[in-house]
Amino acid sequence: MPIKNGAEYVESLRGRKLKVYLFGQLVKEPVDHPMIRPSINAVAATYDLANAEPEMAGAKSSISGLQVNRFLHIAESAEDLVNQNRMQRRLGQLTGTCFQRCVGMDALNSLYSTTYEVDQKYKTPYHARLKEFIKMIQRENYVIGGAMTDVKGDRSLSPSQQPDPDMFVHIVKRDKKGVYITGAKAHQTGCINSHWILVMPTMRLKAEDKDYAIVGAVPVDAPGITYIYGRQSCDTRSMEEGDIDAGNSKFGGQEAMIIFDNVFIPNELIFLDGEYDYAAMLVERFTCYHRRSYVCKTGLGDVLIGAAAAIADYNGVASASHIKDKLVEMTHLNETIFGAGIASSYMAHQTASGNWQCDDMLANVCKHNVTKFPYEISRLAQDIAGGLMVTLPSEKDFRGPETGPLLEKYLKGRKGVSTESRVRMLRLIENMTLGRNAVGYLTESMHGAGSPQAQRIQIARQMQLEYKKKLAKNLASVKEGETAEIAQENPEYFNKIFGVKKKGKQQ
Amino acid sequence: MPIKNGAEYVESLRGRKLKVYLFGQLVKEPVDHPMIRPSINAVAATYDLANAEPEMAGAKSSISGLQVNRFLHIAESAEDLVNQNRMQRRLGQLTGTCFQRCVGMDALNSLYSTTYEVDQKYKTPYHARLKEFIKMIQRENYVIGGAMTDVKGDRSLSPSQQPDPDMFVHIVKRDKKGVYITGAKAHQTGCINSHWILVMPTMRLKAEDKDYAIVGAVPVDAPGITYIYGRQSCDTRSMEEGDIDAGNSKFGGQEAMIIFDNVFIPNELIFLDGEYDYAAMLVERFTCYHRRSYVCKTGLGDVLIGAAAAIADYNGVASASHIKDKLVEMTHLNETIFGAGIASSYMAHQTASGNWQCDDMLANVCKHNVTKFPYEISRLAQDIAGGLMVTLPSEKDFRGPETGPLLEKYLKGRKGVSTESRVRMLRLIENMTLGRNAVGYLTESMHGAGSPQAQRIQIARQMQLEYKKKLAKNLASVKEGETAEIAQENPEYFNKIFGVKKKGKQQ
Amino acid sequence: MPIKNGAEYVESLRGRKLKVYLFGQLVKEPVDHPMIRPSINAVAATYDLANAEPEMAGAKSSISGLQVNRFLHIAESAEDLVNQNRMQRRLGQLTGTCFQRCVGMDALNSLYSTTYEVDQKYKTPYHARLKEFIKMIQRENYVIGGAMTDVKGDRSLSPSQQPDPDMFVHIVKRDKKGVYITGAKAHQTGCINSHWILVMPTMRLKAEDKDYAIVGAVPVDAPGITYIYGRQSCDTRSMEEGDIDAGNSKFGGQEAMIIFDNVFIPNELIFLDGEYDYAAMLVERFTCYHRRSYVCKTGLGDVLIGAAAAIADYNGVASASHIKDKLVEMTHLNETIFGAGIASSYMAHQTASGNWQCDDMLANVCKHNVTKFPYEISRLAQDIAGGLMVTLPSEKDFRGPETGPLLEKYLKGRKGVSTESRVRMLRLIENMTLGRNAVGYLTESMHGAGSPQAQRIQIARQMQLEYKKKLAKNLASVKEGETAEIAQENPEYFNKIFGVKKKGKQQ
Amino acid sequence: MPIKNGAEYVESLRGRKLKVYLFGQLVKEPVDHPMIRPSINAVAATYDLANAEPEMAGAKSSISGLQVNRFLHIAESAEDLVNQNRMQRRLGQLTGTCFQRCVGMDALNSLYSTTYEVDQKYKTPYHARLKEFIKMIQRENYVIGGAMTDVKGDRSLSPSQQPDPDMFVHIVKRDKKGVYITGAKAHQTGCINSHWILVMPTMRLKAEDKDYAIVGAVPVDAPGITYIYGRQSCDTRSMEEGDIDAGNSKFGGQEAMIIFDNVFIPNELIFLDGEYDYAAMLVERFTCYHRRSYVCKTGLGDVLIGAAAAIADYNGVASASHIKDKLVEMTHLNETIFGAGIASSYMAHQTASGNWQCDDMLANVCKHNVTKFPYEISRLAQDIAGGLMVTLPSEKDFRGPETGPLLEKYLKGRKGVSTESRVRMLRLIENMTLGRNAVGYLTESMHGAGSPQAQRIQIARQMQLEYKKKLAKNLASVKEGETAEIAQENPEYFNKIFGVKKKGKQQ
Repeated sequence: MPIKNGAEYVESLRGRKLKVYLFGQLVKEPVDHPMIRPSINAVAATYDLANAEPEMAGAKSSISGLQVNRFLHIAESAEDLVNQNRMQRRLGQLTGTCFQRCVGMDALNSLYSTTYEVDQKYKTPYHARLKEFIKMIQRENYVIGGAMTDVKGDRSLSPSQQPDPDMFVHIVKRDKKGVYITGAKAHQTGCINSHWILVMPTMRLKAEDKDYAIVGAVPVDAPGITYIYGRQSCDTRSMEEGDIDAGNSKFGGQEAMIIFDNVFIPNELIFLDGEYDYAAMLVERFTCYHRRSYVCKTGLGDVLIGAAAAIADYNGVASASHIKDKLVEMTHLNETIFGAGIASSYMAHQTASGNWQCDDMLANVCKHNVTKFPYEISRLAQDIAGGLMVTLPSEKDFRGPETGPLLEKYLKGRKGVSTESRVRMLRLIENMTLGRNAVGYLTESMHGAGSPQAQRIQIARQMQLEYKKKLAKNLASVKEGETAEIAQENPEYFNKIFGVKKKGKQQ
Repeated sequence: MPIKNGAEYVESLRGRKLKVYLFGQLVKEPVDHPMIRPSINAVAATYDLANAEPEMAGAKSSISGLQVNRFLHIAESAEDLVNQNRMQRRLGQLTGTCFQRCVGMDALNSLYSTTYEVDQKYKTPYHARLKEFIKMIQRENYVIGGAMTDVKGDRSLSPSQQPDPDMFVHIVKRDKKGVYITGAKAHQTGCINSHWILVMPTMRLKAEDKDYAIVGAVPVDAPGITYIYGRQSCDTRSMEEGDIDAGNSKFGGQEAMIIFDNVFIPNELIFLDGEYDYAAMLVERFTCYHRRSYVCKTGLGDVLIGAAAAIADYNGVASASHIKDKLVEMTHLNETIFGAGIASSYMAHQTASGNWQCDDMLANVCKHNVTKFPYEISRLAQDIAGGLMVTLPSEKDFRGPETGPLLEKYLKGRKGVSTESRVRMLRLIENMTLGRNAVGYLTESMHGAGSPQAQRIQIARQMQLEYKKKLAKNLASVKEGETAEIAQENPEYFNKIFGVKKKGKQQ
Repeated sequence: MPIKNGAEYVESLRGRKLKVYLFGQLVKEPVDHPMIRPSINAVAATYDLANAEPEMAGAKSSISGLQVNRFLHIAESAEDLVNQNRMQRRLGQLTGTCFQRCVGMDALNSLYSTTYEVDQKYKTPYHARLKEFIKMIQRENYVIGGAMTDVKGDRSLSPSQQPDPDMFVHIVKRDKKGVYITGAKAHQTGCINSHWILVMPTMRLKAEDKDYAIVGAVPVDAPGITYIYGRQSCDTRSMEEGDIDAGNSKFGGQEAMIIFDNVFIPNELIFLDGEYDYAAMLVERFTCYHRRSYVCKTGLGDVLIGAAAAIADYNGVASASHIKDKLVEMTHLNETIFGAGIASSYMAHQTASGNWQCDDMLANVCKHNVTKFPYEISRLAQDIAGGLMVTLPSEKDFRGPETGPLLEKYLKGRKGVSTESRVRMLRLIENMTLGRNAVGYLTESMHGAGSPQAQRIQIARQMQLEYKKKLAKNLASVKEGETAEIAQENPEYFNKIFGVKKKGKQQ
Repeated sequence: MPIKNGAEYVESLRGRKLKVYLFGQLVKEPVDHPMIRPSINAVAATYDLANAEPEMAGAKSSISGLQVNRFLHIAESAEDLVNQNRMQRRLGQLTGTCFQRCVGMDALNSLYSTTYEVDQKYKTPYHARLKEFIKMIQRENYVIGGAMTDVKGDRSLSPSQQPDPDMFVHIVKRDKKGVYITGAKAHQTGCINSHWILVMPTMRLKAEDKDYAIVGAVPVDAPGITYIYGRQSCDTRSMEEGDIDAGNSKFGGQEAMIIFDNVFIPNELIFLDGEYDYAAMLVERFTCYHRRSYVCKTGLGDVLIGAAAAIADYNGVASASHIKDKLVEMTHLNETIFGAGIASSYMAHQTASGNWQCDDMLANVCKHNVTKFPYEISRLAQDIAGGLMVTLPSEKDFRGPETGPLLEKYLKGRKGVSTESRVRMLRLIENMTLGRNAVGYLTESMHGAGSPQAQRIQIARQMQLEYKKKLAKNLASVKEGETAEIAQENPEYFNKIFGVKKKGKQQ
């Protein structure tokens, strides 16, 4: 019986034997925990949008032949990738937070093409297995998390060089039926709210790291898995009475550490096992998709722009020219991110496996802007909000018999606006710029899918300086003997830009 | 006999009766004037690229049935618009300057859809006339200039309110065969190097401005037209001996003022005449195309990044980490522009006339970045170049019997690089950041297709604050009664983003 | 018996009859409240520094003849103002938060010169009264708060035009012994931790606002005063067990709303009463001092730079070139703020009363940079910190019997660094960029002493465009008749810069 | 007979036997060369200002006992350094260009303290010799150039490692009377317009570079010196008829290469000879002064802000809110530079020799802002100016009988402003942002006194990370054992900031 909507999804999470620790104690039922629930609601929204907007948030899959949630869909065209971006922005608008499913979607797509190429070389059965897995999850309409970031230990050492071998997830045992893995994945958004987790390596591997070259699917409640929940700014406000001080009481993000202790993966769910030379391809394809997936933050940006516009209105200053100019600036920055993301998706190419891979240069450019612009948008929102955002008394004070009337009297905004509306809007801005969802809007924008320097390295790899030097030498009439270097550099980007493809190929 | 290539194009310009003034005197033959010729060479490159890359720089036109230069093509798909951007970037790479044909291309496309809609309303014959004109220029393979920017006089007054009515081009006489126009257009790139000029109004008009609502085509050498050539930084270096100090001796941009004194337009070349209510639509569609056409500057950016990389190499500092980081930054900024342009082109929609119009929000975002990023790229290029760029002696000193050997000795860079190569590369950077092509790369990037504030106004018009306020109110659980304002705002942008269109419609 | 040190100060706060509300309830003893205490500790540090560094944080006052805390000192030279900045930066370094005493110091200094000039004009007794008050507080070594920012109601209306007259603090009754005031002051840092409050108007007043032109001193526990404590991000972490998750467990800032309900001010403590024409002078002098007082944030910047450097070290990436470059950038921004502040203090002039007033242009420039650079420094700190900063489990998890060992194993940094040190440092960065002290480091930097637009307006008033136009016209040989405007503009800034003063006057 | 004013200065330059090459030919009399003369006028302004403002641009010297030009004055107090900044800004305002004397002033001051310390260690006679030299130039009122930047050859090699030993100026011969030097200095501003040149090493030297450790004074027309004049953007406009197109026809900067071929320095003018271990001190003290001397650019900034304000007025848009906001932004950036410069000068300390040395951290911060903000001010000036700035016809067209009236008619601005005034103002903006003085305002701001990376390195050296880490560890309650590193880092900056000095010492 497939999950049909958000409400059914929430119910599907009940009663599992998850071992989740929070504040040092086991959580009885995560679904009912007030601090965890908002993050479940955010995932639920992905189900409801697929029903409400089947073209944007769903797709017909050639694999299962079904209309599926887009987060489970293997991209069959550049347009499919563009539609991912549309859906991501819309969900950002609807939840104002991280809805946690992009990692899984991007992991499925990068695994799809990588397993195909591994099989081509090594005659392995991974691609067919993965397709079976995909059919099953499409049919059941499951949520898939992707677990990639290992805890890493000493960053100057490779996985196999670490004094403690568990710093990266690896195979510790193997029997006829499958393998057993141990290690830990940090910063996991898509974890306890998922049904299955795809475990993947986090970096380029060498021959000696063979045991670390493992990809497989495990149910989230597999024996041996422990989750330790991460704290977020203002997280406990979700546990207070009332719904104002949380800012966005319904939706929130989350991150947890996943610890694997001898967790079993059966053979039919293993999608890479020792082919260390493909770890880099998998990681690069994943980050290429995922850096462009940060277009979701433009949806959060829309919310924050809206909140800033609303509070300016409540404060009676909406028509000041500097306010209007700041709203334009916020919009300009937000759409600049969106432009690069859409361009990356549109400039996709078809892989050998038949699915579509977005452009890497533009994906990195998109993400790199995401590491900066949300911070500036957030700064401008605080500018427009005014200082009251951080000096507002608590909801309890607004409800208190002595303090309530005083606050009602003295915190009035412009005529026609209730004090409560003003307070609610300020709390939302606090939530997104300093509070719980600031984690997702700011810090996660910085480090998710790779920290800023990772994008700069990837841009450097593709910037074709020799090609560009040649352009300059031609115009300057410089006759320096051509270096051999141009032959060695990655020509992919300009080949793609200037090699206009036929319809059938690139959309 | 159509023009077949750049060389034939150059010949086609000879012997016309153009009245061009430069330094206070009539120019005998512009084609042979050393200061004008580089700008002609830049246009010639558009012919040669159409031959070399027929898919990128040319297209099959449904209007004439011919394979035509893309600058004369009416866009038949979103992909056609994306291909314009590809071609623009490539020509920027090949010439390092403004190749002057985008105004004409964008004018033809915006006139195409506007005349169709004018005809629908007023039963006028403009669209059919325009198609005939397009057939002719496609067949002959002509260069079309678009003359829009009036000199404007007192900016606080409308055209008809000006003390001197000629501050905007307008009809001064009318007979059976056509109309006569007077006035002046400033900052014209596509003028003396064109074969025909499309004259268009420059702004929204009212009923009392009816005589200013005139669109028509005139040959560049029509009686009554005078051109006064504009100065550019370092322009006279093109007139000096040698080819080093000019920096880019082969290619340059240009701008002239065009003065119309009773210039005749025959009826069959009139495409708007008095329908003042369509002036705004024409201008807005044109600027929408044209702001995204500034993607050309990413081609110039490629040249400047290449020049900076080359001089770093010649100076022996190519591997310094701060140099590499600056080249990454330049690339990041350049590709951010490109992303927004491509996204605007891809997010196009089909007009009633059947051609395709790019997205306006993203076009404005693209251009707005163009008003800033080339300045920063230029600053970084100067940083990498070192101070020698502005203290280099003249080419004559390098050739002088006393000074030549001294300079040869003392201006050596790293081993294996000739002093001349180093000097040439520095002069190219000077050319693009302070010299003749800095006009095109910087100042034109600022003001062409509208100054920065024009983009901010256009972004403001489309930023859908009421839509975004509603998003914020939903998440903050604010129950303020909905304002009626949301109904009034332009919903085009989010409708387009979230309304996923069917294949046939929006590809 | 004067207060001698921080410990005595803390004791001096006990047992007062303050009416402080927090979470809807009266606080029994603020000194012992875990959420309030860190803010008291920060004030205590100002006492201890005055003992440790008597020259920097103290001064010999000519008024009382005593060595006094610099926060109670009336500046007797430009150097005294520079020393304020030194002390502010040092206290920022020592507490990592707002130590809440600058408002009082700046209020005393601006009142000192303003009362003198009011008395000169109106033969009033305010200056002498103020000196008596100053002698008393210097002798007792009290903390003085300055209450300026009214709640303001509808911002388009003046105080006397508000439908509710209490939107600005004003005189509601008057008898032989003094006056009674009603109203509320928002965002008050120096309030419940002070001994006395100086009540002042918040803006320029007109004749009809006479009742609002009231300045006077009241004890913090005067009858009729109610405090409602403001919430800050992550505030309740101070109430949890343990000391890690708070980030900076010892020091914090605070802000409360002060509500005055018929609060009595005796005649001898009234320093302005009806002289509405001096309200603007008072406010302008105060903001001039106070905008430059934001140099304190460079002390917080030093802490955050240190924290970023420490975590980079713990993560084992301290020698990466991009990390070093980011630390340089943070330092550069921080010192740019400092430079403008010091220059403003040094470029002071002596007022008619004999005390010294810093330069207004540079004070505004300083503060305007403070509205931007801490946000960028904070962004860079998050970049260097890595994502773990927002995904770290709680202290309870680190102490838990099951989770503790797992976290100890998996969150190790580089060899030789304990997991706890790493966690503590990350929590400090969270505290300053998203948590409780982010309120002081970021949002208060934005709005304290006036929001960004207030500085732009003040810069505009002093930027002497006519003077500058004349410079340009001279160089361009423009002979336009001089406008009369130059005579009208405020020539103070360039007069001060170019009129080199004699020793005795401007040192 | 001392030189008494600008006019006498100009005459003092006539009839020297300078060997100056320009465009491959010897210049007969530089004073009368139209391209060179504007740079001489700029120097002349330094004489006239010393007469007009003796306190700002002059000083009483304890060395000669005379009232001297401040450019020849050895700083006797921090206030003297502040007054240098005042004078620099004022001269920037009056000339709109580089007045070329700061290098000499900063060289004299850094040599003054360095020779003292060399003598202390090595019992050499340099300091006394230098004082004699200073007395002489103060008496005669000469212009002193400082020649530091060698051409450097292969930058990865030290002076003595270069294949060609002449890549750095060095001693090639020595006799009883003195030494002979050979080599070349690049980018020399203060050269042919000076009377004497101080030759100095350009970098830290080692024992094997002993012959390169030479400092001495030579007259500009000493036998063996050749000057090759550098080109600047639009330089030949100074040689055209008319005075409009040059933009700033009266004042200009210049840079030349100086080639020394066996140039003799007599013993009594040698101020360092072989003490290679003091080269670094000399260079560091010089750059410390000189980076703060770039405050001069705030004077140019004032001119450009004035020009932007004037053209906005002529265009009739002076009251648009975005125009006003851009002028505020330009001012804010300009004053931010000024603040850091003044703070560096004020935060000076007295050297062992008795003169005063400005603060190095703030000097670097000042200069680093100078490598960025003038570019942004320039960009904003171009934004305000409008596109006409780069499309204006030539002065000859304005004077032509056919074109003049047309341009007069069509290039009118707002009522009451002549077309010529508008054109002149636009040409001044072109001059400062793309033309001849853009070299000084932009590129020289980038590279003069060290390129941006040089400042970042110097900031890094002084940023006291260990000190700051300790602050963070204290607040985070981290008990990591203290590293020994704090003992090793340069504690100068915070020692200076927090060690409040006594009056006599640091004022």
